[in-house]
Amino acid sequence: MARHLVTGAAGFIGSALVDRLLAAGEEVVGVDNFSTGQRRFLEAARTSGRFSFFERDLMDPAALGGLLSPEVATVFHLAANADVRFGVDHPRRDLEQNTLVTAHVLEAMRQSGAPRIAFSSTGSVYGEAPVFPTPETCPFPIQTSLYGASKLAAEGLIEAYAESFGVRATIFRFVSIVGERYRHGHVLDFVAQLQRDPGRLRVLGNGQQRKSYLYLGDCLEAILLALAAPAPGKVEVYNLGTDETVTVDDSIAVICDELGVNPERAYSGGDRGWVGDSPMILLDCARIRALGWRPRLSIREGLRATVRYLLQNRWLLEDART
Amino acid sequence: MARHLVTGAAGFIGSALVDRLLAAGEEVVGVDNFSTGQRRFLEAARTSGRFSFFERDLMDPAALGGLLSPEVATVFHLAANADVRFGVDHPRRDLEQNTLVTAHVLEAMRQSGAPRIAFSSTGSVYGEAPVFPTPETCPFPIQTSLYGASKLAAEGLIEAYAESFGVRATIFRFVSIVGERYRHGHVLDFVAQLQRDPGRLRVLGNGQQRKSYLYLGDCLEAILLALAAPAPGKVEVYNLGTDETVTVDDSIAVICDELGVNPERAYSGGDRGWVGDSPMILLDCARIRALGWRPRLSIREGLRATVRYLLQNRWLLEDART
Repeated sequence: MARHLVTGAAGFIGSALVDRLLAAGEEVVGVDNFSTGQRRFLEAARTSGRFSFFERDLMDPAALGGLLSPEVATVFHLAANADVRFGVDHPRRDLEQNTLVTAHVLEAMRQSGAPRIAFSSTGSVYGEAPVFPTPETCPFPIQTSLYGASKLAAEGLIEAYAESFGVRATIFRFVSIVGERYRHGHVLDFVAQLQRDPGRLRVLGNGQQRKSYLYLGDCLEAILLALAAPAPGKVEVYNLGTDETVTVDDSIAVICDELGVNPERAYSGGDRGWVGDSPMILLDCARIRALGWRPRLSIREGLRATVRYLLQNRWLLEDART
Repeated sequence: MARHLVTGAAGFIGSALVDRLLAAGEEVVGVDNFSTGQRRFLEAARTSGRFSFFERDLMDPAALGGLLSPEVATVFHLAANADVRFGVDHPRRDLEQNTLVTAHVLEAMRQSGAPRIAFSSTGSVYGEAPVFPTPETCPFPIQTSLYGASKLAAEGLIEAYAESFGVRATIFRFVSIVGERYRHGHVLDFVAQLQRDPGRLRVLGNGQQRKSYLYLGDCLEAILLALAAPAPGKVEVYNLGTDETVTVDDSIAVICDELGVNPERAYSGGDRGWVGDSPMILLDCARIRALGWRPRLSIREGLRATVRYLLQNRWLLEDART
């Protein structure tokens, strides 16, 4: 049994990781400030004697005081502002929640001797990639969103700490994750809209944005597999995604089929849904696949699982911003 | 005549840029907090009626209040902690001085409508590059220093602001710059050491680190040429360096020749001088050369000019940390 710390423990991916680690017999220290995390997501974890939880705001550099030590095997740093679309409304939010918070986590690790970090980065760091599928070693990217820039900055900090202070690091660049406890993004937007008015759907862009998605359970398996693999260097970087894409229109078709509706679609037009949106996302995942991993659910299966979860947990639809 | 704002206006490169812009008939607003900048470097500029100066600390987000407007043609953002070697002693300094300060400059530009930024980045963002000479589009790098990471983060922020808010951006990735007003780095270290004891020289590493350097005057010409060129995109990135390298031992030979000394050399050993030092730096500068630029001084000529300047300005040697 090893002890781990999970930041963003009450979040979409964080809470699922907590449950998975506890199910594997591990000891878990969870940290969250509930800015976007949900107390309900920790209900199962709280029944475990191997779970402890601390409500802390990581914008306080001392937030992890007393929680880290050389005995904490892995710091899963998942706390983040995960919203790409609304970055331009709050230019400082990504910088604070994704870059500065990561700096605080790293500094707490350095001071306490915690040896290893696993970090949830994003395929958004590739900006508008010049090559598809996009490998981890693609040409030096130009950032196109405050979100991507803030995660790139966090990656760089992690790598510099790995080189300077001996922290071991595994960085995961996710495509959009779907699945249970899904809290933001187009599936939530569309389901919330169609619950209010099944006859009409507003769509950002022209519906032809083509993207890859990954099911939550497959994402967690990839993370745990990568961390269990031999790590020859100080820093390992893995793309996590599926080898397929769907268009926004494909996604709408799946969602409408699950809901049994056939709405009129109103497109805002253009090949980007919002400033910083990428018309195409497809990551080359050969590196994680070389460890034996492959996703169990297709994109369409993942989308269906997400819609079903939302329909069974309608409280998640209530605060959807669409 | 256009008006420009220069941050780090009292610094090594900043003050030389101020002088150059004034000589070209431009109006210049200088900002510096004198943390590393030198009042003496502004003595010439202060005699110009087209120069105004404001002592401000850019860690204050409101520092540029009242100084920016759509009429400020270019913000030359040169304020930085430019010290790579001592980053590990102050893990937060690069983050603050290079990343957060850039965020503050960008936000002030957004709020005021200032249209364009020119940014002094660094070849250190390539970490230990897998290809030499290293082009701007080299494979996605892994950071190896807090300094490089902080500049990469600033680049990403600038690019995201360009995409999100229409700020135009030109990013320059410098090799080490040498020349008049040189304030830190191995030439200062070596000259200061040899002034104290001409018989002995301590050298970090094995003397075989192989790097490119660029003369200050050539650097400034490249910057001004790039800004005058048509800029097809929102963001332009240029490497600035020479097409040659010298080893640390080569550099020592030039310095000793200028000083007329022949010291015993004591090497600390290893192929890196300090944590995050790169054993090899050589940038592919085809992109800036395509605009017609080429350096006028060779590396050795630039080193000689630097040594001569230091000998004529011995006060710069007094606070050298070696």
